[in-house]
Amino acid sequence: MLAEIITIGDELLIGQVIDTNSAFVAKQLNKIGVSVYQITSVQDNKAHILKALNEAEDNADIIILTGGLGPTKDDITKRTIAEYFNDTLVKDESVLNNIETIWKQHVRTELLQVNKDQALVPSKATVLMNKLGTAPGMWMEKGNKVFISLPGVPYEMQALIEYKVLPKLKDKYHCPYILHKTLLVYGLGESALAARVEAWEDALPNHIKLAYLPNLGKMRLRLSTKGFDEHLLKKEVQEQIDKVLPLIKDEFAGFEDEEGSVEIVIAKQLTKLGKTLAIAESCTGGTVAERFTINSGASLYFKGGIVTYSTASKMNVLKVSKTDIDTYSVVSSQVAESMAQNALKLFQSDFAIATTGNAGPKKGDSDAEVGTVFIAIATKKEVYSQEFNFGNSRVKVINKAVNKALEMFLKEIFKN
Amino acid sequence: MLAEIITIGDELLIGQVIDTNSAFVAKQLNKIGVSVYQITSVQDNKAHILKALNEAEDNADIIILTGGLGPTKDDITKRTIAEYFNDTLVKDESVLNNIETIWKQHVRTELLQVNKDQALVPSKATVLMNKLGTAPGMWMEKGNKVFISLPGVPYEMQALIEYKVLPKLKDKYHCPYILHKTLLVYGLGESALAARVEAWEDALPNHIKLAYLPNLGKMRLRLSTKGFDEHLLKKEVQEQIDKVLPLIKDEFAGFEDEEGSVEIVIAKQLTKLGKTLAIAESCTGGTVAERFTINSGASLYFKGGIVTYSTASKMNVLKVSKTDIDTYSVVSSQVAESMAQNALKLFQSDFAIATTGNAGPKKGDSDAEVGTVFIAIATKKEVYSQEFNFGNSRVKVINKAVNKALEMFLKEIFKN
Repeated sequence: MLAEIITIGDELLIGQVIDTNSAFVAKQLNKIGVSVYQITSVQDNKAHILKALNEAEDNADIIILTGGLGPTKDDITKRTIAEYFNDTLVKDESVLNNIETIWKQHVRTELLQVNKDQALVPSKATVLMNKLGTAPGMWMEKGNKVFISLPGVPYEMQALIEYKVLPKLKDKYHCPYILHKTLLVYGLGESALAARVEAWEDALPNHIKLAYLPNLGKMRLRLSTKGFDEHLLKKEVQEQIDKVLPLIKDEFAGFEDEEGSVEIVIAKQLTKLGKTLAIAESCTGGTVAERFTINSGASLYFKGGIVTYSTASKMNVLKVSKTDIDTYSVVSSQVAESMAQNALKLFQSDFAIATTGNAGPKKGDSDAEVGTVFIAIATKKEVYSQEFNFGNSRVKVINKAVNKALEMFLKEIFKN
Repeated sequence: MLAEIITIGDELLIGQVIDTNSAFVAKQLNKIGVSVYQITSVQDNKAHILKALNEAEDNADIIILTGGLGPTKDDITKRTIAEYFNDTLVKDESVLNNIETIWKQHVRTELLQVNKDQALVPSKATVLMNKLGTAPGMWMEKGNKVFISLPGVPYEMQALIEYKVLPKLKDKYHCPYILHKTLLVYGLGESALAARVEAWEDALPNHIKLAYLPNLGKMRLRLSTKGFDEHLLKKEVQEQIDKVLPLIKDEFAGFEDEEGSVEIVIAKQLTKLGKTLAIAESCTGGTVAERFTINSGASLYFKGGIVTYSTASKMNVLKVSKTDIDTYSVVSSQVAESMAQNALKLFQSDFAIATTGNAGPKKGDSDAEVGTVFIAIATKKEVYSQEFNFGNSRVKVINKAVNKALEMFLKEIFKN
């Protein structure tokens, strides 16, 4: 069963907006055994959308469109789909009721004709009611193929996928089981890792695919397969993992969570241990904290964080000693360790992570080279730190520092 | 002049990685007058890549591919391009030298055959030297069309676009000037805004396109045009802006910066005023701070931030009074204002922003409904706050709160 995702909107093609919808839809489809053949981003242009629909119908069984369903004149997806199906738009009373309800609860101004017109849907469409917004989802069939049009607003689209689209797709198709298992590997480059596991990779059965995903200091090694016997697939993949783990035992840092991040692995382990975390950040500017707090359940283990961006705030707020700063500079192992220890005390946590460095582009309150970062981990018993140089691209330095801090902390909490 | 961007990699089609490369490339191409016709994400599969190349050649003049150039077996882009051009791979000595240099500086282990093989390029290709990595960029021509293949690692791709691809494209083509101007509008929904400006929109000249971009409580209204007379285009767009501004004068919050964010507008204004900012966050968990610190120059105005995720840390670290917390709860205007005032004092800043709320999914240390958020702004003279309810989706609550905090602060610093 193959799907194609078509995202519609000029904002994507001028680079004003990053398309996050496609990755969400793809991941959800994978969970119910639907593979995505292609993702295509097209303009708010009738001819272009029609061409994309035609091509997608050749490539895929399930075509999911997002975007272009708003009330304004630049939104033309609905009319274009109606044309593609030789259909006309008719008023749907249930959608109109939903629009009126949302208007009463959240907007409270007069309901305009353009809003009422959002209740117009192609006569052949099944409405997927959007409780979170005024643009309805639409489900249309052509032979054994399904065309699904969803609003582009991410949380509206996400709710429709989860509660309307996936259940209907599972009803309609008998889908295989898709299994991805991703190993997190630190400290080995892509080619060194490939050389290490070469014999194993060459002996992999044909239906298990392997991918290498390098990302700023960490590697992800992904095994993927699909089929109808879930139990057998899991067993086969586990056998391969059992074979590869001894080859990378010093570099293997854990499995990536289903939801896809190291910070979730850390969150689960901290929650399991009943331990808490505090974070003191300089060059990473709140990004380490944000990586944890964006996930629900963070309040169970995350006590708090401090971003001491200025030297004065390192002294006044985090109580790093002036002597240490004068002697070693703000970008030093001594200051990183002091930040971690003091954050641990201040927030009364079991662990603390600290970062201090120079992300560039210019040198700051320290003579340290651009790219120099110290990362410290404090526990109730000890504190330690490491020095890194992450190059001279600001965003890269920040993200590499965040990844490295998470890696060091992951190793800390899985120590025995 | 039209371009198509093809991003290659199974990780995109299973939703493991969000495609951020396309938006970057599209924005850069726009700057030199190249419009992007379509963005297509395809699998690491020879037949699929060949099909995408064929279709892109029909649609566009410039085809930019990213991804699939790594040293491992799942990376097949280079061989596939050679096949598309009926070409063979030959060793490029300059690329090999670059690989050896990088290896000596950063890796220091033995150079493997797979790494040396990265110096193989199609014989018809012009190499775009990648100083940041071992996979070279490649430039190939077919008639008047150009095919450019770049590594998928974002910072390597970005440097190649900026320093190699754009200059070569500007040399080769006489491109028009593309102008986008985006107005930030707060406090009006999409349809209310459209109704307000309807007569103006209907009278827009054909070559000026209008787009509405709603995003969690803020609206962006984008005017786009292109042509060869930069001066005339700027004048025409300015005339339209002069006409629309009086219609939205209470809701207009400024122009979106070229680089695309409210926080950059704020950063510029603070730097211009010579004023500083501190941030105290609860439910937004470091995200407000991160929005500022990701941009260079943040140290000029950003003093620091505190994430007080637990009630204890609000008292111990931010010195919010126990009486206020007991009387009003941690999710209250009193606590938000106290957090803002105390952050201002602690970091000795001119302004402070504070957030406290319940992002869900469960209620925390307060009886406040999920979605309730208080945002406070403190200056040296006053403090004020507002209450919001941002619904019950965690990520949505956090991001709406961040946007609203930025909006409130934007208004504060542009007050006269």
